[in-house]
Amino acid sequence: MKDEFRSRLSDLRIRLELLLDRLLAPTATGGEIVRPARLLAAMRHAALDGGKRLRPFFVVETARLFGVEGEGPLRAGAALECVHCYSLVHDDLPAMDDDDLRRGRPTVHRAFDEATAILAGDALLTLAFAVLADPSTHPDGAIRAGLVANLAAASGIGGMAGGQMIDLLSEGRDLSTEDIRTLQAMKSGALFRHACEAGAIVAGASAEDRGLMRDFGARLGLAFQLADDLLDVTADASQAGKRTAKDAERGKATQVALLGPKKAADLLTVTLDEAVAMLAPYGARADMLAAAARSIGEGGGG
Amino acid sequence: MKDEFRSRLSDLRIRLELLLDRLLAPTATGGEIVRPARLLAAMRHAALDGGKRLRPFFVVETARLFGVEGEGPLRAGAALECVHCYSLVHDDLPAMDDDDLRRGRPTVHRAFDEATAILAGDALLTLAFAVLADPSTHPDGAIRAGLVANLAAASGIGGMAGGQMIDLLSEGRDLSTEDIRTLQAMKSGALFRHACEAGAIVAGASAEDRGLMRDFGARLGLAFQLADDLLDVTADASQAGKRTAKDAERGKATQVALLGPKKAADLLTVTLDEAVAMLAPYGARADMLAAAARSIGEGGGG
Repeated sequence: MKDEFRSRLSDLRIRLELLLDRLLAPTATGGEIVRPARLLAAMRHAALDGGKRLRPFFVVETARLFGVEGEGPLRAGAALECVHCYSLVHDDLPAMDDDDLRRGRPTVHRAFDEATAILAGDALLTLAFAVLADPSTHPDGAIRAGLVANLAAASGIGGMAGGQMIDLLSEGRDLSTEDIRTLQAMKSGALFRHACEAGAIVAGASAEDRGLMRDFGARLGLAFQLADDLLDVTADASQAGKRTAKDAERGKATQVALLGPKKAADLLTVTLDEAVAMLAPYGARADMLAAAARSIGEGGGG
Repeated sequence: MKDEFRSRLSDLRIRLELLLDRLLAPTATGGEIVRPARLLAAMRHAALDGGKRLRPFFVVETARLFGVEGEGPLRAGAALECVHCYSLVHDDLPAMDDDDLRRGRPTVHRAFDEATAILAGDALLTLAFAVLADPSTHPDGAIRAGLVANLAAASGIGGMAGGQMIDLLSEGRDLSTEDIRTLQAMKSGALFRHACEAGAIVAGASAEDRGLMRDFGARLGLAFQLADDLLDVTADASQAGKRTAKDAERGKATQVALLGPKKAADLLTVTLDEAVAMLAPYGARADMLAAAARSIGEGGGG
C-alpha cells in the first residue's frame, strides 16, 4: 500500500501541475480583461513546481472513497492548493514571518517585490473561488456553492487567516496546550479539514460521511502541524527547503516547545492512530487514505 | 428623482451597514472555529462607517429593475463592498500606495499594523465569497455559484488585482489613452461591471439583460475613475477624506493628466450620457439607475 500511495501521489502531482499550469495560462478567461505578465509570473512562481500536494491528494482520495474520480475532485484540490500557496506568499512577507526561502527557492517578495507578492496572493485566493464556481467543477450549482462556502469558512477569519493572526499575536508569549490546539486547528487544521470534507462534498456523500471526513481531516491537521514543528527543530534548511529553528528564535508557541520533541513525537503517533481508526467504517476501501495519513508521520509535512 | 435617489441611497447605506455589522459579528458562524478580536476589529475598521456605498447601490437597484428586492441583492452588494474595502486596505499598504488617510480616518495598517492589515484584507476578500455562497443569498445554487464566478473574474488577475499591478508598473511611465482605459477598466471598472451584472444575476435576468447591464456598468466604471481623478487634482484632502494631488506626485497615468481637467470633464459628461442612453429599453423603470449614474458626475466618487 505504501508503494501504491507513492505512485498515486506522484500521479496526482502531475495531473495537478498540468491543471494549475492551465489555470495560470496567459490567456484571459470568461469575464477577465487581460492577465498582466508580471502578476501571472509571480502567481506561477508561488503555485507551480513545489510542495508535496498533500492537501489536494486528500481531496481526490476522499472523493474516490465515495465513488467519484476525474476533473471535479482535481479542480477542488487545485482550488485548495491555490489557497494554501497564497497563504505561504503572504505569511512569508516582511511584515509577517519575513522569510527569504521557500521550497528551496526565493520567496515571491524576494523573487519579485512586496507589492507584487501581496497582489499575487490576493489573485491566487480569488482564483481558488473562480475554479470552484466554474461549472466544470460540478454540474450541480448547489455543490459548487457548497465547496465555495466550505473553503471560505476554512480560510477566513474563523479559519486559516484567523489562525495566522493568533500566531502572530502569540509570539513571545506562553500559550496553554489548549490555546495552541485552537491556533493550530485554525492555522493549518482548517485546510486539512476542508480537504477531506471537500472530497465528500464534490462526491455528493451523505451528511454523516461529510462529518466523519471533516473530523478525520481535523486529526490530519493536528498531525501535520506536529510533524512540521518537529521538522523545524530536527532538520536543517537544506533538508526542509526553508529556514528552520525559527520557531524557537521567534518565541513561537508550538506543542514541540511545550512538550519536548520526544513527547511531541509520541503525540503525533497517537493522533495518526486516532485518524486511521476513524476510517474503520469504510474497511479496505480507505486503505489509501490511511497510508496517506501515515505518511504525515514519516516526514510528509511541507 | 434626484431627491428620491438620495433617499434610496441613504436607506441602502443603513441596511448595508446593519448587514455588514451582522456579518462581522464576534461569533463564529458555520464551519468557523473562533474569530480573533484584533483581526475582526481591523476588518470592521475597513468595512464599516465609510464610503458612499455606490457599488452595492447599483447591485440592489439593478436587481430591482428586474423585479427582485430584499435580502439576496443586499447580500450580493455586501459581498462586493467587502471586496472593494479589502482592495483599499491592500492598496494603502506601504509596499503599494503607502497612504495614511482613508475616508478621513487612519488607514488599517496605521490604526493597527501591516501584518494585521494584510490579514484583514485577505479575510474580507474571503468573507465576500462566503456571503455569496450562503443559501440565504439565493435558494438556487447555480445562481450563488454564478455570483461567485462573476465576482472572482472581476476582482482577480484579469480584473481589479491585475489592474492594480498595471497601475503600479505604470508609475512614472507614459501610457497611451488605450492603455489607460484598459488599466481603468480593470482597476475600477471591473467592480462596477460586476455590480450591475450581479444585480441581473441575482434577479435571474436574461442573458441579454445581463450583457446590457454589464456594458452599462463598464461605462459607470470609466465615469467613476474620471470623476475620482478629477477630484484628485481639484479637491484638498479635507474635502476628499484622503490624500490628494498624489497622482501627479507619483507620476500616475490618468486621463486627467493626459487630457487636462477641462477635456476630462467633457469626457465624463459624454460617458455618463452614453451610460444613461443604454437604459432606454427599460424606460421610466430605469430612472433610478440613471439618477445614480448622473450622481457620479456630481462628485459621487469615493
